[in-house]
Amino acid sequence: MRVSELVARSGVPLATVKYYLREGLLMPGEATSATQATYGDEHLDRLALIKALSNAGLAIPRIRTILRLIEKPDDSRFELLGKVIAQLPPYVSDAEDGEHQDYPRARRVLEQLGQIYDPRFVAVAQLERALEAAEAAGIPMDDERVAAYGEHIRGIAETDIRMMPTGAAAGQAQYAVLGTILYEPIIAALRRLAHQDLTAKLLLLKTENPDRQDPP
Amino acid sequence: MRVSELVARSGVPLATVKYYLREGLLMPGEATSATQATYGDEHLDRLALIKALSNAGLAIPRIRTILRLIEKPDDSRFELLGKVIAQLPPYVSDAEDGEHQDYPRARRVLEQLGQIYDPRFVAVAQLERALEAAEAAGIPMDDERVAAYGEHIRGIAETDIRMMPTGAAAGQAQYAVLGTILYEPIIAALRRLAHQDLTAKLLLLKTENPDRQDPP
Repeated sequence: MRVSELVARSGVPLATVKYYLREGLLMPGEATSATQATYGDEHLDRLALIKALSNAGLAIPRIRTILRLIEKPDDSRFELLGKVIAQLPPYVSDAEDGEHQDYPRARRVLEQLGQIYDPRFVAVAQLERALEAAEAAGIPMDDERVAAYGEHIRGIAETDIRMMPTGAAAGQAQYAVLGTILYEPIIAALRRLAHQDLTAKLLLLKTENPDRQDPP
Repeated sequence: MRVSELVARSGVPLATVKYYLREGLLMPGEATSATQATYGDEHLDRLALIKALSNAGLAIPRIRTILRLIEKPDDSRFELLGKVIAQLPPYVSDAEDGEHQDYPRARRVLEQLGQIYDPRFVAVAQLERALEAAEAAGIPMDDERVAAYGEHIRGIAETDIRMMPTGAAAGQAQYAVLGTILYEPIIAALRRLAHQDLTAKLLLLKTENPDRQDPP
């Protein structure tokens, strides 16, 4: 397709497409003359990926790092996935991030759940910070909540892994990046809606049966 | 306690405490002289709430709205909870938000889950936008994923509702606000860590049994 069609189908403005080409984020099209090139589905796919990362608030250097990792996966598949996910927000400061740090709250939660605790995983530092914020606000995660959340989050993660495309590492890494940042807001919105649905049904029940006793 | 102790125990700098007092976000202490006042646990609690909201990126007018709603709950409990949660990010533009809008992707998902679809709920617009972003990036939520996510998210939400404090509407509204914004990043981090844990165990299994056949 011509660049005009690439712009129309991707929804990315021409100036931005040209910028991504100059920056090397979008691979060049196949030259058909001195001034024209033709583009394929791989360009549409790449633009969708860049757009999703950009909309999630990632700066160009982060996006470039992810694309390089996906393009030339020279690590093991497990390390590749860890490295691309580590590029996603929320960012923890360097002081917080590193193998010599200890994350006591995250360690305790992961031990309770029987999961690997590896302080080099950026998500461990993210978890520690989030647990600390809940604690400071007076709603710490107690064991009962950790157990319930952990079980259900594992169920969601199992679905994600089961539905991961088989085959090339690049495709898996792209799925991991997009599935992480794009499904997180869906999960958050669905949880808020489940709260509303459950509260509505609970209050309705009380209204209908004001004298209802809770079962013994 | 004196203001110096309030500063030390809350971790909120004196200048900020004074600013919150001037802005009416923090209720005045009990005057003990023309220039001194004494503060109690309710001030510590309020500062923790303001700090949590502020760290979550809420601007002062939003925080003020939440505090007013919590202080003078003149709506039904259900409406109060809806109104405070509606103050939390992510914000949808006014054009997107409102009862005359239709949110086809969110409607379809909520119908599949057997939940109320009410376009006045801000979380419906948030869900629509998140579903649209996943679709645009080539990873739409299919029915299988909706079913799996829906079941587990409902399990998490049931835990939240079960652990909600009983009693005054103000306490419930504060729990709802804090539990929404502070547990969302915990859920996101736990999902990322579950992905890593599952992937590690899966790849380790393959390495140990390279010729392993998947069960028929």
